[in-house]
Amino acid sequence: MNFDHSPVAKELIARMQAFMQEHVLPAEASYYQQLKGGSDWTQWQQPAVMEELKAKAKAAGLWNLFLPEDGARLANVDYAPLAEITGRSMMAPEVFNCNAPDTGNMEVLVKYGSEAQKQQWLKPLMNGEIRSAFCMTEPDVASSDATNMEATAFVEGDEVVLNGRKWWSSGIGHPNCKVLIFMGLSAPEADKHRQHSMVLVPLDTPGVKIERMLPVFHTLDEPFGHGEVSFTNVRLPLSAIIGGNEQDPAHGIGRGFEIAQGRLGPGRIHHCMRAIGAAEYSLELLCQRALSRVAFGKPLAKLGGNADIIANARMAIEQARLLTLKAAWMMDTAGVKAAMSEISQIKVIAPNVATQVIDAAMQIHGGAGLSDDFPLAALYAYARVLRIADGPDEVHRGLIAKLELQKQALQSQAIPNQAMRGQA
Amino acid sequence: MNFDHSPVAKELIARMQAFMQEHVLPAEASYYQQLKGGSDWTQWQQPAVMEELKAKAKAAGLWNLFLPEDGARLANVDYAPLAEITGRSMMAPEVFNCNAPDTGNMEVLVKYGSEAQKQQWLKPLMNGEIRSAFCMTEPDVASSDATNMEATAFVEGDEVVLNGRKWWSSGIGHPNCKVLIFMGLSAPEADKHRQHSMVLVPLDTPGVKIERMLPVFHTLDEPFGHGEVSFTNVRLPLSAIIGGNEQDPAHGIGRGFEIAQGRLGPGRIHHCMRAIGAAEYSLELLCQRALSRVAFGKPLAKLGGNADIIANARMAIEQARLLTLKAAWMMDTAGVKAAMSEISQIKVIAPNVATQVIDAAMQIHGGAGLSDDFPLAALYAYARVLRIADGPDEVHRGLIAKLELQKQALQSQAIPNQAMRGQA
Amino acid sequence: MNFDHSPVAKELIARMQAFMQEHVLPAEASYYQQLKGGSDWTQWQQPAVMEELKAKAKAAGLWNLFLPEDGARLANVDYAPLAEITGRSMMAPEVFNCNAPDTGNMEVLVKYGSEAQKQQWLKPLMNGEIRSAFCMTEPDVASSDATNMEATAFVEGDEVVLNGRKWWSSGIGHPNCKVLIFMGLSAPEADKHRQHSMVLVPLDTPGVKIERMLPVFHTLDEPFGHGEVSFTNVRLPLSAIIGGNEQDPAHGIGRGFEIAQGRLGPGRIHHCMRAIGAAEYSLELLCQRALSRVAFGKPLAKLGGNADIIANARMAIEQARLLTLKAAWMMDTAGVKAAMSEISQIKVIAPNVATQVIDAAMQIHGGAGLSDDFPLAALYAYARVLRIADGPDEVHRGLIAKLELQKQALQSQAIPNQAMRGQA
Amino acid sequence: MNFDHSPVAKELIARMQAFMQEHVLPAEASYYQQLKGGSDWTQWQQPAVMEELKAKAKAAGLWNLFLPEDGARLANVDYAPLAEITGRSMMAPEVFNCNAPDTGNMEVLVKYGSEAQKQQWLKPLMNGEIRSAFCMTEPDVASSDATNMEATAFVEGDEVVLNGRKWWSSGIGHPNCKVLIFMGLSAPEADKHRQHSMVLVPLDTPGVKIERMLPVFHTLDEPFGHGEVSFTNVRLPLSAIIGGNEQDPAHGIGRGFEIAQGRLGPGRIHHCMRAIGAAEYSLELLCQRALSRVAFGKPLAKLGGNADIIANARMAIEQARLLTLKAAWMMDTAGVKAAMSEISQIKVIAPNVATQVIDAAMQIHGGAGLSDDFPLAALYAYARVLRIADGPDEVHRGLIAKLELQKQALQSQAIPNQAMRGQA
Repeated sequence: MNFDHSPVAKELIARMQAFMQEHVLPAEASYYQQLKGGSDWTQWQQPAVMEELKAKAKAAGLWNLFLPEDGARLANVDYAPLAEITGRSMMAPEVFNCNAPDTGNMEVLVKYGSEAQKQQWLKPLMNGEIRSAFCMTEPDVASSDATNMEATAFVEGDEVVLNGRKWWSSGIGHPNCKVLIFMGLSAPEADKHRQHSMVLVPLDTPGVKIERMLPVFHTLDEPFGHGEVSFTNVRLPLSAIIGGNEQDPAHGIGRGFEIAQGRLGPGRIHHCMRAIGAAEYSLELLCQRALSRVAFGKPLAKLGGNADIIANARMAIEQARLLTLKAAWMMDTAGVKAAMSEISQIKVIAPNVATQVIDAAMQIHGGAGLSDDFPLAALYAYARVLRIADGPDEVHRGLIAKLELQKQALQSQAIPNQAMRGQA
Repeated sequence: MNFDHSPVAKELIARMQAFMQEHVLPAEASYYQQLKGGSDWTQWQQPAVMEELKAKAKAAGLWNLFLPEDGARLANVDYAPLAEITGRSMMAPEVFNCNAPDTGNMEVLVKYGSEAQKQQWLKPLMNGEIRSAFCMTEPDVASSDATNMEATAFVEGDEVVLNGRKWWSSGIGHPNCKVLIFMGLSAPEADKHRQHSMVLVPLDTPGVKIERMLPVFHTLDEPFGHGEVSFTNVRLPLSAIIGGNEQDPAHGIGRGFEIAQGRLGPGRIHHCMRAIGAAEYSLELLCQRALSRVAFGKPLAKLGGNADIIANARMAIEQARLLTLKAAWMMDTAGVKAAMSEISQIKVIAPNVATQVIDAAMQIHGGAGLSDDFPLAALYAYARVLRIADGPDEVHRGLIAKLELQKQALQSQAIPNQAMRGQA
Repeated sequence: MNFDHSPVAKELIARMQAFMQEHVLPAEASYYQQLKGGSDWTQWQQPAVMEELKAKAKAAGLWNLFLPEDGARLANVDYAPLAEITGRSMMAPEVFNCNAPDTGNMEVLVKYGSEAQKQQWLKPLMNGEIRSAFCMTEPDVASSDATNMEATAFVEGDEVVLNGRKWWSSGIGHPNCKVLIFMGLSAPEADKHRQHSMVLVPLDTPGVKIERMLPVFHTLDEPFGHGEVSFTNVRLPLSAIIGGNEQDPAHGIGRGFEIAQGRLGPGRIHHCMRAIGAAEYSLELLCQRALSRVAFGKPLAKLGGNADIIANARMAIEQARLLTLKAAWMMDTAGVKAAMSEISQIKVIAPNVATQVIDAAMQIHGGAGLSDDFPLAALYAYARVLRIADGPDEVHRGLIAKLELQKQALQSQAIPNQAMRGQA
Repeated sequence: MNFDHSPVAKELIARMQAFMQEHVLPAEASYYQQLKGGSDWTQWQQPAVMEELKAKAKAAGLWNLFLPEDGARLANVDYAPLAEITGRSMMAPEVFNCNAPDTGNMEVLVKYGSEAQKQQWLKPLMNGEIRSAFCMTEPDVASSDATNMEATAFVEGDEVVLNGRKWWSSGIGHPNCKVLIFMGLSAPEADKHRQHSMVLVPLDTPGVKIERMLPVFHTLDEPFGHGEVSFTNVRLPLSAIIGGNEQDPAHGIGRGFEIAQGRLGPGRIHHCMRAIGAAEYSLELLCQRALSRVAFGKPLAKLGGNADIIANARMAIEQARLLTLKAAWMMDTAGVKAAMSEISQIKVIAPNVATQVIDAAMQIHGGAGLSDDFPLAALYAYARVLRIADGPDEVHRGLIAKLELQKQALQSQAIPNQAMRGQA
């Protein structure tokens, strides 16, 4: 196991850290001041400061680094620390054009997009000119079992017709969001994992209606938003289906899960490392508060079990980061399938560690920690959502156990009977 | 130990449950629709539906029941289940004129108010005509140690002059809020717990300025709000001091902690029982969701560790409720001082149980649980705040341990040495 | 809910506490010195000091108090504090003739025994002249599902013939153990809970062979022991079957589960209260050690998170005790069936609280805590076993969840739809 | 960070795994049968099978691999997986001459021993001809603060004279134990960490008396034992002091803590990796039991929260192992001092993970898991002791927090004030 960073990665880490300190963090205040749309999402605007930062990041070569196929060609182990750095500010990922769901959508297009799809959507996404959304989760079924999806994408002649309702379509409220990927049921008679397809849908297609933005702990995550979207007889040419080819644009029918699988591995590394970055930042804030506030004649750091809280947070973060690096390293060296257990493991661990550490930091900040004077409440919401998004903890634990039991079932012939030394 | 309810209490429980089902819960939707002030708190208005409900509750005799001194004269053990019932809806306590901080403020006035103070403030508070706030916590010091308070209430001639900054003054944004109780430093040379005084301050007194409303997990808790308030040379007659008497209005100087202590016991029972009500309600929602949603071919209730989550929630709630009843019973039968450890115990346990159960309910609801489609996010914010408000967990744990160690120190002479049977 | 003790119970509590201080605890050292059989269980002897203590307890009327049918006629709520007192010493229950499994066996005989069975076995058991065992758990099947039992008790003519292997037959190594209750399969074709019978088996019946004593954390629990026992064509008259009647001694066939159910309720209260007594005692030892040992210039009580550990232990014990009292009160007032969830709840909570508190006490004692210089290792073993005996935690959690979900299923018609206020 | 194993290490891992399967595990039954001294430790004998295994291991070159200074010259990262392998059997470390406290004692002698000391003690220790003990912990003081040590090692003329009482001297009951290292107070006036010295004491020196063997959860750990030892005017030449030199044998006076520090780093890696090996083995047993036992018609693995338990164990073990590898890697690349936090972190994490996983495995095995039919109870005792030995969890957490806070204190000048964006 080798988590050493390549020379290129080391240099990028140093430059990205510097960029965060010099440009991103000092811009947070203006960014949030420029966000004034409030509860009416149709009034949301992209803060000018974000576009300025994006231009700077692009010029600095700190752009699209998540994408193995682009210039930097970073391994997951190399991208991981960069993702962690961006976890320290909710606005950072967009600055570097590395925010979900655009990252996953771009990867899908790189791997499965037709030339026309790449020209039309991948190029402007990679340039940061537009944003995108991903419509999978549905309000009426338990989405922890993705095969529950009921929205339809049926082929009718040379068109594919979409119907149904999706929600938690993150980023769909962004003023720059122009396209979404819709996943729906196309082939109800096929095998369970061959029934669904992915379709590229321009946001202004007739029949697409954003019904509302969903709050998470009372915030709408302006200017991104989490949308509930209805699709009513949305008609698109077959070329809108992802995973087809020029000869047979309908070839993508039923490939939804296949495409989704490839999309999820790296995305989980990104999310987990950002969560770890958020936890690390929260621990710093916790320690600073513990050192600077005084009660009963002592700094909080010296009171009661606060030192234990700090130690436990440090140990949890260290372990979560190492586990995430292991998952990244396995993906890099043995592939997503071999890393399946590890990917599920980090998907459980990192958001749980992050919520716990952030919660501890909120507690030591007192009321201030729950307010917007500190970034903790926002980071908490992000980390808490992650325990549900991309598969809830429960589903991942189930998968980890299943793989573990399979391993034991395979080895069980070889068990020496010393385990029963007491048995006659 | 006897938690039996008096016949009066039993009848009130039944009537309050019925009132909640018939009137309060069905009104929630309109109430939240009528709240439209949003982020500009100066535009907040009292929803008409609330005043209608208040009138009905008053007419039904379900009014001011928290107050041992009023007609119902309920023991804490008898009021506890009523508080639990109101924990099921964030709007319920105001309906019954039983919401913090008005309850505590009314108790203070009943016990320590002069006749004039009672006429001017207690009467309209008990009639539900006005609301009030309590200004104790300060932004610049660790308020977990209340003796840190730095805002001043100095006597100058026949006036008391207030200066300083307070925050987390809950309810101060309410359109009906007309008065606040200010706690500040009056006698810096006195013993640590004889330095502070409480002063009644009409909200429109010159020098009182509400600077902003503080969000909790991004919500401002319209129409109550949690305010940050500055006091700049706020001048009031000595008769505004609480705890004085007609001959000597300045007699209340330095009695702040004495008065605060009496205020906290019952308030903690109320908060804890409401938190338990919130947890109980969340467990109901959790079970209903677990029974009604299907994944992998089974209702969620049958999947993975979900049954354990339900069992653990049930056990935690049962225990927290029993402990709170014990604390109430001790207050009723032996007084607040004798119940000191138990009151701190419930103050730790109930909000922690509530946050855990609500969090579990959110998790099983998936994204919906974090949104406003269910009351869970709002209940979570309430319960989470309680881990900080009225003394953070850490301070209460410290007190519990101190009392426990004192007990052992007293008994340690009597320890038989059988504990060391192996020692020669 | 009323946990008040009757005047009789109050007097017994005071007397039993005094008896423990005056007689039992001071005798512990001699008792353990007189236990010298060691690993060869066939050499075990009853320490003389135990018989002396039994005689004293009997003379003092502190005898068989567990039994509702005897003179004291204590309710479960009244017996609970007595059981807690005996939890402070591993030797105490036998002193008062209140130790498992004799208590449960006596209750079975009181309720289901024939006159002849009572004369032969109940009378000497109640006199403390003999001891008994209960043979239910089997080595070859998962005993968490009691219907798995495979040992057989088939009627052949006027005899019942036992075959099979049992283990964890506690108390079977006691020199005074003269009889055991065997539970086995009699009617494989009957309903799942009507297949098994209970049979009274004199220990010296041909075909009964104690194979070995099983260690728990390396201790054999001399002089009680946990035995593995084989039954090979053990032949007994039909009158040995429990639950028959004079006309039809075979009437007890298939009543095993029915009889077992009645046996378990009070037994769980006893075990749980003893576990709570063990926890309370361990917390005392913890506090004394924390006050008396010094490191880094301070008593341990002032170091790190030790105060939190003490506070958490106090809160856990209080809650576990209240929950157990509630279960006892429900059994007393509404019956075992109505208390089913609560009985399972305490069966999970009390042993878990006890293991945690004892473990914390061991930790603060350092190495001494793991040795025999303190009773902690022995108490830990007792509490740890309880997480498995009489139904493992997992089975009880499952039952609690099942009952909870049933409750919700019943109420779900009545759910007001305010829970979905955001849904159009 | 690079945890890759050197080619030498890879080959050793494979050979040691094979050796364990072929020789050690199959010999466990005979080993335990040959241990028959029981509670009288003076009768303990070295089982013949152990000497045979040692000879085989030595012949195979699987000998003294813990020692960086010997032939294999393994880095800590390379030795770690070997230690993990030996964690699967309580008898394995001695087979490979890699058991504590001999490993630490040998390291001390390699680094600080005089030529004469090496000839007399290091050589036979490295040959496995003798064993040794380490006498540091004392019964009368809190040993979590090592500076509490009160036993004395005063120089009188050309002798050093030892007095005092030590306990938890592991391995001192071994029939082959011939020497111990005594740590005691020599220079009470010196700086706190310059007061103590280490002295080599042949076990048969007059005045050395082994008072008893201490049980851990009722087991004496035959044939090693944990001894309580009294030292009464034990007189040795100054050349017995460790850390002196030929010119000045008294040069070692006051170097006790300096020497102890160097001793602890690698030892903690060894212990932690063995604990992880024990956890890994227990998880295997857990899974096998979960797959093979059936209740309520299903294998235990499919019941309730058992899958979650398996998943949680897998995640905990993975993280603990990675953290231990990181600590090893830091020691290898940056030295013990730089790895101080990480070493304390693993010392907390690994034993806690091990106790939790082993406890879960015991639970799923039912009563069998607590008996000696499975190695779980023995492994549990080992892991539980580790939470106290070599510094209790509490002390390590304190150190981790202290280092964390120092880090933050250093960085706090550089904190951008975006953390307070809400503050005017």
